[in-house]
Amino acid sequence: MFQDFTATTSPDQGPPRLRALRRELAAEGLDGYLVPRADAHQGEYVAAHDDRLAWLTGFTGSAGFCAVLQEIAGVFTDGRYRVQVKAQVATDFTPVPWPETKLGPWLAEHLPHGGKVGFDPWLHTAKEIETVEAAVDGKGIHVAPSPNLIDRIWEDQPPPPAGRVMVQPDDLAGESSADKRARIARAVHEAGQTAAVLTLPDSLCWLLNIRGADVPKNPVVHAFAILHADARVDLFIAPAKVEGIAFDEGVTIHPPEAFAPALAALKGPVRVDKATAPLAVSHLLKDAGIDVAWGDDPCILPKARKNDVELAATAEAHLRDGAAMVEFLAWLDREAPKGKLTEIDVVKALEGFRRATNALHDISFDTICGAGPNGAIVHYRVTEGTNRKVNPGELLLIDSGGQYVDGTTDITRTVAVGAATEESRACFTRVLQGMIAISRVRWPRGLSGRDLDSLARAPLWIAGMDYDHGTGHGVGVFLSVHEGPQRIARISEVPLEPGMMLSNEPGYYREGAFGIRIENLVVVREAPKMGDERDQLCFETVTWVPIDRRLIDAGLLAPGERSWINRYHADVREKVAPRVSAEAKTWLEAATRPI
Amino acid sequence: MFQDFTATTSPDQGPPRLRALRRELAAEGLDGYLVPRADAHQGEYVAAHDDRLAWLTGFTGSAGFCAVLQEIAGVFTDGRYRVQVKAQVATDFTPVPWPETKLGPWLAEHLPHGGKVGFDPWLHTAKEIETVEAAVDGKGIHVAPSPNLIDRIWEDQPPPPAGRVMVQPDDLAGESSADKRARIARAVHEAGQTAAVLTLPDSLCWLLNIRGADVPKNPVVHAFAILHADARVDLFIAPAKVEGIAFDEGVTIHPPEAFAPALAALKGPVRVDKATAPLAVSHLLKDAGIDVAWGDDPCILPKARKNDVELAATAEAHLRDGAAMVEFLAWLDREAPKGKLTEIDVVKALEGFRRATNALHDISFDTICGAGPNGAIVHYRVTEGTNRKVNPGELLLIDSGGQYVDGTTDITRTVAVGAATEESRACFTRVLQGMIAISRVRWPRGLSGRDLDSLARAPLWIAGMDYDHGTGHGVGVFLSVHEGPQRIARISEVPLEPGMMLSNEPGYYREGAFGIRIENLVVVREAPKMGDERDQLCFETVTWVPIDRRLIDAGLLAPGERSWINRYHADVREKVAPRVSAEAKTWLEAATRPI
Repeated sequence: MFQDFTATTSPDQGPPRLRALRRELAAEGLDGYLVPRADAHQGEYVAAHDDRLAWLTGFTGSAGFCAVLQEIAGVFTDGRYRVQVKAQVATDFTPVPWPETKLGPWLAEHLPHGGKVGFDPWLHTAKEIETVEAAVDGKGIHVAPSPNLIDRIWEDQPPPPAGRVMVQPDDLAGESSADKRARIARAVHEAGQTAAVLTLPDSLCWLLNIRGADVPKNPVVHAFAILHADARVDLFIAPAKVEGIAFDEGVTIHPPEAFAPALAALKGPVRVDKATAPLAVSHLLKDAGIDVAWGDDPCILPKARKNDVELAATAEAHLRDGAAMVEFLAWLDREAPKGKLTEIDVVKALEGFRRATNALHDISFDTICGAGPNGAIVHYRVTEGTNRKVNPGELLLIDSGGQYVDGTTDITRTVAVGAATEESRACFTRVLQGMIAISRVRWPRGLSGRDLDSLARAPLWIAGMDYDHGTGHGVGVFLSVHEGPQRIARISEVPLEPGMMLSNEPGYYREGAFGIRIENLVVVREAPKMGDERDQLCFETVTWVPIDRRLIDAGLLAPGERSWINRYHADVREKVAPRVSAEAKTWLEAATRPI
Repeated sequence: MFQDFTATTSPDQGPPRLRALRRELAAEGLDGYLVPRADAHQGEYVAAHDDRLAWLTGFTGSAGFCAVLQEIAGVFTDGRYRVQVKAQVATDFTPVPWPETKLGPWLAEHLPHGGKVGFDPWLHTAKEIETVEAAVDGKGIHVAPSPNLIDRIWEDQPPPPAGRVMVQPDDLAGESSADKRARIARAVHEAGQTAAVLTLPDSLCWLLNIRGADVPKNPVVHAFAILHADARVDLFIAPAKVEGIAFDEGVTIHPPEAFAPALAALKGPVRVDKATAPLAVSHLLKDAGIDVAWGDDPCILPKARKNDVELAATAEAHLRDGAAMVEFLAWLDREAPKGKLTEIDVVKALEGFRRATNALHDISFDTICGAGPNGAIVHYRVTEGTNRKVNPGELLLIDSGGQYVDGTTDITRTVAVGAATEESRACFTRVLQGMIAISRVRWPRGLSGRDLDSLARAPLWIAGMDYDHGTGHGVGVFLSVHEGPQRIARISEVPLEPGMMLSNEPGYYREGAFGIRIENLVVVREAPKMGDERDQLCFETVTWVPIDRRLIDAGLLAPGERSWINRYHADVREKVAPRVSAEAKTWLEAATRPI
């Protein structure tokens, strides 16, 4: 089982650790210390070795940080985790609503003039620290790099992750690592830089056509690299991870401790990504007198534009995953109405159906499975403590995905257990209309996700409804299920380009009652020419799983919407039926009948 | 007749005038001279006195400029005027596609190092000149203020406009001028400025609750003003214009020639709008050692947020105009199928129906009346030369409006003359769907027109279609029919606020075949609470005129779209029927039957 349902921390663990940390603070002459959730690679998941925030405070959310002063220790968490943080941390810690309360002003409020706050420069980006410094500017507070004080007091700290690297073959990657390196190096050279420092695991994995096992759920490798403008790459990685892996001659392996001296030996200007690279990287360069050229990690945008081989691979992964989902939904429709299932039963069954493909590398993230009112908690993760019966008459929201060597999936379906109310059908239909609007839209090249976001919301807006999350996020191919830079969201100004993969997931959440979300993955494509021959882009759907017909009020649909859902279901049937059991096939036929 | 159909210029007039201007250039030691379309107030319409571009070149479009050098004279016009400019100017002038070719680079290409280009600093904004200077920076070309050389050679130049000012009574304005002045002065004071210079006629008219007659179509006053932070206003205006007008004591009248000395006598910082004020204003201030504080004209945003009295007034104007439009459309349906009408006949009849209200102050702009292929020319203005028969079997696009003392209207209807093709009905229905999407939408407060623009286009986009103009522009109340800052357009980042008035006018144009546009005016309102009680805004439609049912393919509509059109038509019938003739009423009843 990839997912577990136990609480891994308890509030009791925090206070003695906090006392020990405060003793270290005093010894170091510091008035405060920052403990972030992030590791040096700024990913969404961290290894046990790097789970310092949870170890210190008990808080296990995927974002947040703790600012420890002698008199107060603030645990900063966003809206998703307001309730959770209170249950997980002892009263010695003070939950702080973030980003409403920002770190800089909070420090200025709680520290005297002359206060000094330490932080580990490997765990914070230059941009983060710049923001804090700007906020305390003129307040006499200093923010200063320091050794990692948690690692000093954490006696049984697990060792750094040592997942074995695996090669992503060219027939899945679609472009050799040598070609990618030449292409990206050319861009670095053309920008007038001698090298770019790479610290993001996704970027490294993409550039070198490798995958790893350093954190759960995301098959990434923890390492650092320097990409030189002549296309050579120096890779700094624990030797055990790459034992037996034959890199080609452009890639030289070094132990991690060689990274800092290698930085100091470069000639500038060297590109560093202010938003993602540890501050330590630019410090090491500057200390050696080397010019730092701030600029985006050069792999991010090329990685986001998937090539045809990657798109064909992920399409296959989606068909495989779709077949598993169909087996699961058929089972759910048989079992759930009996009123015996719990959310955990459902999560376990779903993982079982994915495992039965014999191709599941991992799940893409902990399955969100919310029955009735739990469906309204957008980032709900079921534990033994919250586990709820799936009752007939309720909606069940299941957001899940699989990691396969050929692709990463992410799908949400909301299903009616027993009879659904008119009200929940009306809401479901509006969410579906938004999801169809994104599925069908074509648009002039140059628009960003911001320009399309309203299309997904308008059917809800006109009924006074909305959802407080983005409409879509970027998705990798056997990489992170959340990747940038493209999004479908109010704040996304990145133009959509062919090959970008995104989720399309409008929702609606009624607190205390139910949650609805419908999610397919889509790929940006050049639209087939029609009409007056304008140059347009469109989305191609890659997720093939029935959408619960019982929740659709066909009387609310436009003719084009109805055609879309019937066409989609016909395609699902045609593509997935050959891949499922006889029992699931019977269910699939009923589930994909025209409306 | 407000509209005329004759060509007012001819290509022959240009060459001798160009030779005279070049002699002046040489005498002034200049290598070039800029002749803009704009006057000192940057409006869309200019008085005969200010129509220098047309006088020099023959080009009568509403935007563009001429850059006269000794060897070449470029007439810069945008896409709307590419064809027109070629017909209107002699070959001594070179049409230049603008903004694709920008003035700065063009000057750099055609002038030698050391070249000097003159311009009248009263006719160009600081922002405009800054842009040109930035483009020629480092190229050794100088752009320098100079006397107006056109005025020097234009022997029979008409005198400056001397339209009489009229007072806009408080019961139409809804807020006294004294209250407006106090409110805007407070904002200027709070921004740390001692005064703001006002140069936009709309701003002055709004602030002082006056209207004028200095240019055709827009009832504005040409004048300058200084609004002091203590709410006093110095108004610089030709005395004859304000004879007999009693301003209250906070407003002091001065002759126009007192403006420059008054600027020089101010204490800074003084707010000047870089994008709208003549460069001469900031030059006069800076020459007197006064700090210029660049900032938006402080009246623009308050003017855009209409108060309830203005909205009630304009609603009444729209009902009156709606009744005239219904009389017109009933007449058109009787006459057009006979195949005898021309576009000019239609324009004349429409103005006649508006005049018959006995309340028409002017038309809002020259009526755009395009039959068949002429409908595809977005800014088509019919002349005796282009006048076309309105043939049965064609579409007829009519975009028009009236200026009434209580409101400004702007409405487009596209009607079928005789039987319409399936293809034109399908296109019309898509345009209508976009127009309905904007009419019905509700959205979270804070969004700008950019965030809604896609809703109007998506029904066209999915058929490979689009339109190359914005979806909506701001509209005044007995003021300019185009006013900022709000728009519904890709480039509009101004948040929509209650009281803002906009057009809602998607379209579709098939070159050589037909044009379709449907336009209503809408007002931003706080949306009635519904759903989960979110704070939302919505549009309230204020235009009440039937939309041609014969062009609607009901089979393409969503249930909500069909309800909207039927509800709209029922409202039109109820509101307008009591105001029209018996004959028009019969027509109206048929034209508003449910579909």
